[in-house]
Amino acid sequence: MRNIKLTIEYDGTAYSGWQVQKNKKTIQETTELTLKKLFKENIKIVGSGRTDAGVHAAAQAANFKIKHLIQPEKLQKALNSALPKDIIITGAELAGNDFHARFNAKSKVYRYTILNQPYPSAFLRNKALFCPYKLNIAAMRREAKALIGRHDFRSFCVTACAKKNTIRTVKRVEIKKKLLDGRYPVIECIIEADGFLYNMVRSITGTLLEAAKLRMPEGGIRKILMKKNRAFAGPTLPARGLCLMEVKY
Amino acid sequence: MRNIKLTIEYDGTAYSGWQVQKNKKTIQETTELTLKKLFKENIKIVGSGRTDAGVHAAAQAANFKIKHLIQPEKLQKALNSALPKDIIITGAELAGNDFHARFNAKSKVYRYTILNQPYPSAFLRNKALFCPYKLNIAAMRREAKALIGRHDFRSFCVTACAKKNTIRTVKRVEIKKKLLDGRYPVIECIIEADGFLYNMVRSITGTLLEAAKLRMPEGGIRKILMKKNRAFAGPTLPARGLCLMEVKY
Repeated sequence: MRNIKLTIEYDGTAYSGWQVQKNKKTIQETTELTLKKLFKENIKIVGSGRTDAGVHAAAQAANFKIKHLIQPEKLQKALNSALPKDIIITGAELAGNDFHARFNAKSKVYRYTILNQPYPSAFLRNKALFCPYKLNIAAMRREAKALIGRHDFRSFCVTACAKKNTIRTVKRVEIKKKLLDGRYPVIECIIEADGFLYNMVRSITGTLLEAAKLRMPEGGIRKILMKKNRAFAGPTLPARGLCLMEVKY
Repeated sequence: MRNIKLTIEYDGTAYSGWQVQKNKKTIQETTELTLKKLFKENIKIVGSGRTDAGVHAAAQAANFKIKHLIQPEKLQKALNSALPKDIIITGAELAGNDFHARFNAKSKVYRYTILNQPYPSAFLRNKALFCPYKLNIAAMRREAKALIGRHDFRSFCVTACAKKNTIRTVKRVEIKKKLLDGRYPVIECIIEADGFLYNMVRSITGTLLEAAKLRMPEGGIRKILMKKNRAFAGPTLPARGLCLMEVKY
């Protein structure tokens, strides 16, 4: 059995997330079924982690074991020919036999995109949150600094993870203001951490957006972290603005 | 009756083009039906010109006459609330009574986008032509120069327009190489002209792409123009890469 590492780009709009679920179309299952069709093997793919329904990936990482001796580059082409056009294999390589996409991930980078203009965009409707209000980027950047480091992120996790270990290390938070395609004023929140709790990026970005609307006093994020209670954080933003950008090993 | 000018962004993927057609979903009809629903008037919208099935617009221009005295900004918000999310009104203003979106257009700017990397993209699947081959941008730019000016563009028009006046003035052709969203290597062909023949941008770009693949001798475009015969030009590229960027008045 060889161990293959895949890098996968997907538009999550039409899927119920990454992970296999009964009676739902997921990226994992669609890719597994395509592998089965191509290679006549029952293959189980291990992703670096789940992404929720509607969340995208520019570079999800995954691995799987296969008997077939096809070269990774040919496997990539075969998969891209057979997969739906909203799932693309951007990389395929032989990995060491021990490589595990989830356990070996050192950090992940997520990006949340906010379209900040007076009207929505037809092109970004599934890729960004539309926010027409004036946003204070300086306040977002100031509050974001409090997230850096090793903290208990319980306040940014939905109740589902109430009993788990909620300590994570955030390595980087960047708030970028730019014109997407030279035309669309967006704000991107880029967060890198050694791991993420359920809905963590979406509730952090929702809280930073409160800061950007000046609805939060200075030091608000630091205080919310200390509360260790989801009730104090801002809203969980919709899935469509979120994209898994990179998994580092 | 007041005359309202609209600027419209649309993702053309789900539509049979701009213009009303029997039993087909078009952008013009969708917008007209939405206006009727909102204002109880039968309104006919005049676009700056048609766009084909699958072609997009970042800024189509249109006008219509309306009895209702709603302010343009409020009309814009009402339309954006009622229209499907792949059609967005990015501007609405009172126009002079004589303003006609088609007859008064001085020039239009189209952009054709080519994704030039070894594998397709899930995010650009409906927005760009995927081309994995090595492309010679210098050859594209050199050939593009021959298009500038007043020429008979019969060679870049499908047979449908064989009898019409096929002389147009191309004001600008730019070949841009860039990283879209910091990640996707694309080549954009931007063409501005006082008017366009049916499929003109798509067949010009198809011919420039032949030059980029070094399948055309130097001076090829100039010779094709002189032939005044569609048979000598390159292929008409698919609609999805094309976007109407601006209509100038």
